[in-house]
Amino acid sequence: MQIDLSIDTDAVRHQLITFIQQQVHSAGYEKALLGLSGGMDSALACYLAAEALGPKKVLALRMPYKTSAPDSLEDAQKVIDTLGVNSITFHITRMADALIDEFPDMDRTRMGNIQARMRMVVLYDQSVAFNGLVVGTGNKTEIYLGYSTLFGDSACAFNPLGDLYKTQVRQLSAAMGIPDSIQRKPPSAGLWSGQTDEGELGFTYAEVDQLLHLLVDLKKTPRECIDEGFSSLFVEKVTARLRRYEFKRRLPPVAYLNHKK
Amino acid sequence: MQIDLSIDTDAVRHQLITFIQQQVHSAGYEKALLGLSGGMDSALACYLAAEALGPKKVLALRMPYKTSAPDSLEDAQKVIDTLGVNSITFHITRMADALIDEFPDMDRTRMGNIQARMRMVVLYDQSVAFNGLVVGTGNKTEIYLGYSTLFGDSACAFNPLGDLYKTQVRQLSAAMGIPDSIQRKPPSAGLWSGQTDEGELGFTYAEVDQLLHLLVDLKKTPRECIDEGFSSLFVEKVTARLRRYEFKRRLPPVAYLNHKK
Repeated sequence: MQIDLSIDTDAVRHQLITFIQQQVHSAGYEKALLGLSGGMDSALACYLAAEALGPKKVLALRMPYKTSAPDSLEDAQKVIDTLGVNSITFHITRMADALIDEFPDMDRTRMGNIQARMRMVVLYDQSVAFNGLVVGTGNKTEIYLGYSTLFGDSACAFNPLGDLYKTQVRQLSAAMGIPDSIQRKPPSAGLWSGQTDEGELGFTYAEVDQLLHLLVDLKKTPRECIDEGFSSLFVEKVTARLRRYEFKRRLPPVAYLNHKK
Repeated sequence: MQIDLSIDTDAVRHQLITFIQQQVHSAGYEKALLGLSGGMDSALACYLAAEALGPKKVLALRMPYKTSAPDSLEDAQKVIDTLGVNSITFHITRMADALIDEFPDMDRTRMGNIQARMRMVVLYDQSVAFNGLVVGTGNKTEIYLGYSTLFGDSACAFNPLGDLYKTQVRQLSAAMGIPDSIQRKPPSAGLWSGQTDEGELGFTYAEVDQLLHLLVDLKKTPRECIDEGFSSLFVEKVTARLRRYEFKRRLPPVAYLNHKK
């Protein structure tokens, strides 16, 4: 089976620009900022923010760690130069290594989460200096797969991309003309050398977006998805992730007290 | 007017212990951890967690910054020694100063937020090593006044104290016998020397808890609160905070797309 997830890019672009304007202005702000990784999601969010608010009202932060790929920095710079947004480059290595170096047995997932959270700390600090709101860059695929760092890259004031699957982010990025080198490279959180999202997840975005559409949007059961042609192993893997990372999509539970006296 | 906010401490203690057990076990865990500042909220949360899970299943982290008061460290140690929970002391100075030192004009609020977020980074990293869930320590007063650092001290997997006003936290802390020195000292986020919550907020917890009870629990209008005897200046100050920091109590808005094709 093949499900068509293509979007009307003109309509979506218009909706997202209006959303960004409303979010920023209704909170009493004029400006916004975001971390620009050199990847597609943050590039697209930067294009949308610049169009919504004007490039001089947008600040892009490049926050490399010592192992970050140099071409990611260059790709981020292309976005900055093309749009004419403000930019800061802040190296997170000293901050991150002050923790990482204390635990020599730390695995790379922990190291990656520390990097993602350090970027949040820098971004939220700079939001005060710049007097702007932090724009989220997480897409719908990532959100439902729980493929992000809680209180790290998922931390934001509002998120324009959260209802777009990765394949739809790609379509809109192409329509908005983000740099070719960004469009072409394999998606990666860039947390260690050679990491790719699809390699780490064990399936492609093209596949999983279709399955998520059935499970999340059309509320099909796992059984129905298998009947539609998805392998039971794949369906099980994805539904397990939906359950396992559900906590990342909600606020922490509070103990509500039903009788106090 | 005087509103009685006193609680049945035995009943509340039982409810909170059950809540902690349910939260930890239903997520497939046995252990929990928390930052222990030396203040009352985290001390109480530690007492509750130790009673719920057993002290050996609890990890308390002391995370001083170079300006943290030495007696806070000692008070935290008293809790650790009394309960027999596991503990780690991790100094956040190097991590925090790697950012703070880059911006010499930074005010103390920004410095305080960086410290609070650095503690979150350490706590969440240690949650992986310890294989436990992060217990929140924010009380209801703090939550409604927005008196916490987003993605900092408010970050947690679940929060046992979030439906208790500060005055109720005091009552339960006394009933559970947390160390006297902790019960006696003025509440402070400890982010700079001499900081006290009540000095910074400009009113006492005893006052504001009563007003919040009217506004939040009984859904009274500001006018009705003034009619009940609160000054209009105080009511305006608190309602302004309720509005201003509402974003800290909810998830970031996502741009939901109503027509994609």
